[in-house]
Amino acid sequence: MLTPKKVEILSLGDELLVGIRLNSHLTYLGGELVRHGLDPARDQELPDDTDIIRTAAAEALQRADLLITTGGLGPTSDDVTVDALARALGRGMRHDAGVETALRERYARRGLTPTGNNLRQCRIIEGAEVLPNPNGTAPGQWIEEDGKVIAVLPGPTGEMRPMFADQVLPRLIRLGWASERIPFLQIRTTGLGESQVAATLDPIFEPFADRLRVAYCAHEGVVDVRLAAVREEALPLGELNRVGERCRSALGSAFAAFGDQPVAALILGQLRRHGKTLAVAESCTGGLLAARFTEIAGSSKVFNGGVVCYRNDAKTNLLGVPACLLEQHGAVSPECAVAMATGAAEALESDYALSITGFAGPEGGNEPPGTVYIGYHSPLGVWASKIHHRGTREAVRERGVNAALDFMRRKLRKYEMHELLECLRC
Amino acid sequence: MLTPKKVEILSLGDELLVGIRLNSHLTYLGGELVRHGLDPARDQELPDDTDIIRTAAAEALQRADLLITTGGLGPTSDDVTVDALARALGRGMRHDAGVETALRERYARRGLTPTGNNLRQCRIIEGAEVLPNPNGTAPGQWIEEDGKVIAVLPGPTGEMRPMFADQVLPRLIRLGWASERIPFLQIRTTGLGESQVAATLDPIFEPFADRLRVAYCAHEGVVDVRLAAVREEALPLGELNRVGERCRSALGSAFAAFGDQPVAALILGQLRRHGKTLAVAESCTGGLLAARFTEIAGSSKVFNGGVVCYRNDAKTNLLGVPACLLEQHGAVSPECAVAMATGAAEALESDYALSITGFAGPEGGNEPPGTVYIGYHSPLGVWASKIHHRGTREAVRERGVNAALDFMRRKLRKYEMHELLECLRC
Repeated sequence: MLTPKKVEILSLGDELLVGIRLNSHLTYLGGELVRHGLDPARDQELPDDTDIIRTAAAEALQRADLLITTGGLGPTSDDVTVDALARALGRGMRHDAGVETALRERYARRGLTPTGNNLRQCRIIEGAEVLPNPNGTAPGQWIEEDGKVIAVLPGPTGEMRPMFADQVLPRLIRLGWASERIPFLQIRTTGLGESQVAATLDPIFEPFADRLRVAYCAHEGVVDVRLAAVREEALPLGELNRVGERCRSALGSAFAAFGDQPVAALILGQLRRHGKTLAVAESCTGGLLAARFTEIAGSSKVFNGGVVCYRNDAKTNLLGVPACLLEQHGAVSPECAVAMATGAAEALESDYALSITGFAGPEGGNEPPGTVYIGYHSPLGVWASKIHHRGTREAVRERGVNAALDFMRRKLRKYEMHELLECLRC
Repeated sequence: MLTPKKVEILSLGDELLVGIRLNSHLTYLGGELVRHGLDPARDQELPDDTDIIRTAAAEALQRADLLITTGGLGPTSDDVTVDALARALGRGMRHDAGVETALRERYARRGLTPTGNNLRQCRIIEGAEVLPNPNGTAPGQWIEEDGKVIAVLPGPTGEMRPMFADQVLPRLIRLGWASERIPFLQIRTTGLGESQVAATLDPIFEPFADRLRVAYCAHEGVVDVRLAAVREEALPLGELNRVGERCRSALGSAFAAFGDQPVAALILGQLRRHGKTLAVAESCTGGLLAARFTEIAGSSKVFNGGVVCYRNDAKTNLLGVPACLLEQHGAVSPECAVAMATGAAEALESDYALSITGFAGPEGGNEPPGTVYIGYHSPLGVWASKIHHRGTREAVRERGVNAALDFMRRKLRKYEMHELLECLRC
């Protein structure tokens, strides 16, 4: 495999074009294709229109080696993908008895009988191989034509993704178009902007310009750096890992981890290794901080719980924040942040606690909207940190949660390094 | 304006194709275009490649009246949009002194001086009108050619959206291509699947087939129905609203609201009108339920707070759930759900409380993973409800929160109707 095979995607459905649905299929497929050495060269969102899809498919097949379509395989008259592709290829369609049997069985299990419309889903393009759909009624199709491949996938995420992973990808690997796994490394950083990360790392990547694909992506308080060998043999994993280690050193405390674990998961993992527990208390972020921890599978081993206390009396009743402290310093203050953290640690019998109090906006108080204090309680002591972010309510909340997680990650890192030094001294 | 003007979009940037970024620009632009009577006919995600963009732009201009591009206006060599479009149009580029002045002022405010790379952003296509960018460094461009329009917009969301809303849309309205506002109505439903909603409403829409565009969209526990007149004069708003009222009757309790308010906002609004307050308690959804309420601006007037209690002792300490109840029935039980709700109402001095307890998975307990109980405490009494959903941890949590919100919305609706009947009896 010398140059990566070119892939184009047709994402089919009006709902993608009129502001109703985000095209998350493209994000999934794009990521998978790159990881397996294929080159996602173009995607098009097209309406449910036979002529438009037919023309676009024919044009895409002139440019690309592999054409993947998603959507438009349902039972209604809007679902025109099979017709359009058959016409683009100049092929007929046939009714597949095996697909009909599977469809009837699926309906029978729910006590239903398929109607004529449903049986439209049994139409297969002449010469196509059926890709069975264990998660839905519409089968996929695999078509080879003049050394090119068309993979026809259903629209629902829970049907499309397993069909791609279990049926399309293995066929592409057998064809020699996709690699089992291209040497790939992701570096997660926090606390720096995308351009700062790039300025730090680009000199490291320079000598590998023709062997390495580098992509930076800023999202949700982290900047990820994705490194992929351009081909399987271009940069063996061992060498790629050495490049990664150099990045780690250059990034210092901004290096969070290799991989794509959320910062919350890194924190939980570290606490779990030390047998420690965690609680949170939050006002303006109203549950988002707790949700970030609890979305991690297995979090209940470490995360004891949280308190969302919007009102001052809740801070006092549930967390024991003294009423006089609230009166003297206000609820949005470093004093209150620390008292909330300590209160949460006590109420939820936890070793560590993280707290957030602030004004998410649009209204402020003793501080302007966008002011957020982070409180941190640990066996080594308590800390508070202030951030300010101008932005929407949603952005301030998001930024507050990310800043709190990064604050705790860095504190734990220092602590772990301190422990390591202690060990070395012994 | 007889037929809607056709719009194509080019979404530019490698990051959209390799699984790094979702194309939320398309969702925003698609929604805005439809609401203003324009027809989003195609979107393409293209890599940062001058030739590919040039060709695709030239082809799009043959099909569409309006071409909108997003992204690729930055200072680096990856940012090739302006070059590519100039070539597609066979036009030159000029350096714009006004843009440079604005750029230098923007940098000076941060104590910086722009480098040669940054000055690339001052290149304007011959004959283009500059669209100033108050939120960033790259200006947009407005180009008219042979009765067609090209609108060139920057990539960052916070720059693209205001530029479209404040500069592009008003120009399109002045041209007579866009309407100030097309008669538009959104109906929000809960508790039914997309096909059930469609089966209920399609007969109502039938007589308006050529005057009304109908789109169904299922997301986050709701199914939205969007109704838009095909043209401003095709279906006046008064008539559209009468169609909406017929939908409301047909949907019964599945009708949540007209508009796009989240269910949590509907609940908060109703409680606020009655001067009531709310608290939540949750285990497996770990903060997500609280976050849904607190993301609504002004929620602090109604929402007193919440408790995330993963562990049994937290349920007992913070919410007063009796240890013997937990022992007898288990934490995932209707008894515990109700005790959590009542405990939250008491601890947070609230009139209403909503609770969730369950096994999000991958592990279960006395019940299989995916089992979730909802508890509800109100001045009229307490209720519990059980749901079961097979799916990922994330899906179970999401489903649990949506079911709890819908449960409370329906209970409040009954209560309000009951009150209304009481009034009528007086």
